[in-house]
Amino acid sequence: MKKLEERIVQDGRVLSDTVLKVDSFLTHQVDVALMKEIGHVFAEHFKYSGITKVVTIEASGIAPAVYVAEALGVPMVFAKKSKNITMTEEILTAEVYSFTKQVTSQISIVEAFLSKDDRLLIVDDFLANGQAAKGLLEIIGQAGASVEAIAIVIEKSFQGGRQLLEEAGQTVVSLARIASLENGTVVFAPADV
Amino acid sequence: MKKLEERIVQDGRVLSDTVLKVDSFLTHQVDVALMKEIGHVFAEHFKYSGITKVVTIEASGIAPAVYVAEALGVPMVFAKKSKNITMTEEILTAEVYSFTKQVTSQISIVEAFLSKDDRLLIVDDFLANGQAAKGLLEIIGQAGASVEAIAIVIEKSFQGGRQLLEEAGQTVVSLARIASLENGTVVFAPADV
Repeated sequence: MKKLEERIVQDGRVLSDTVLKVDSFLTHQVDVALMKEIGHVFAEHFKYSGITKVVTIEASGIAPAVYVAEALGVPMVFAKKSKNITMTEEILTAEVYSFTKQVTSQISIVEAFLSKDDRLLIVDDFLANGQAAKGLLEIIGQAGASVEAIAIVIEKSFQGGRQLLEEAGQTVVSLARIASLENGTVVFAPADV
Repeated sequence: MKKLEERIVQDGRVLSDTVLKVDSFLTHQVDVALMKEIGHVFAEHFKYSGITKVVTIEASGIAPAVYVAEALGVPMVFAKKSKNITMTEEILTAEVYSFTKQVTSQISIVEAFLSKDDRLLIVDDFLANGQAAKGLLEIIGQAGASVEAIAIVIEKSFQGGRQLLEEAGQTVVSLARIASLENGTVVFAPADV
């Protein structure tokens, strides 16, 4: 997605060889007009895939995920990172290690919101080591639902996430793929869309 | 907002005299079409208020907040509940006690995303005891920005949140106001919009 790559170059900041900060338009402050365009691009790509629901993880996956869900005309479900007192039903859980936050956390989705008949599109803002998506796949597997693809806004292609997910039989579709952040410069690999 | 009240009656579940579960369309699974309508209703109400930015707290505030921001044509910023390694700049913080999760947590916003010239609309999915909004007001006060109003999807009017915020000089605008959850029944107070 050319416009997203341009925005990354313009407003992204390379903090190290592995860390790209895009908190001015994606992960903290959100450019909702850009999210809407992202939603349309993914929806166009998956419009014949029979998607019944979009799934993401709180918190920064939610903004792009709502727009993908809107454009596809389906509900969105976000996995929670902590339980609260209103989660009284059967919940499906998985462990996720975050390299960014350097902690292992449990993610969960109430069982009632995923069914064997669901065909899901996973949406997330970042793909790095693939741990978040792997956790979601584990939960979705417990529910017996199927996954059409994993739709990513920004993929750090020099980390192992895509390979991990592809080896698990999944399709990854990324709007921007970053080949390298070395020397403070963003180098893109060809994007999937 | 009549349609929201009807949805609460139809899909909300009263877990106790104080807990209403709306996780099938707002706080876990999200009805994005309803969120879009909520965005339009708030934007219509605040269209002459000179709002420059919408502010919320992760995670369940994000979906309504993006649609309010979209309809007003402004960016959305969500306060974070934990730091991560890409938050290297000056951050503004406040402590928030959650009665739902029964923990005190720190929320934070990067200083660069709020300025003295900003006129903010706070958006959140729930108003109960007002602690989350109070934390946001504290952060916004540190930034020297002004607050037009606090826009709430569902207010539990039998708890102290509205009074706390109004005594702090704030305007609260709620789409649904719940007067009571006693005996498993949702009783509404007149909504603000």
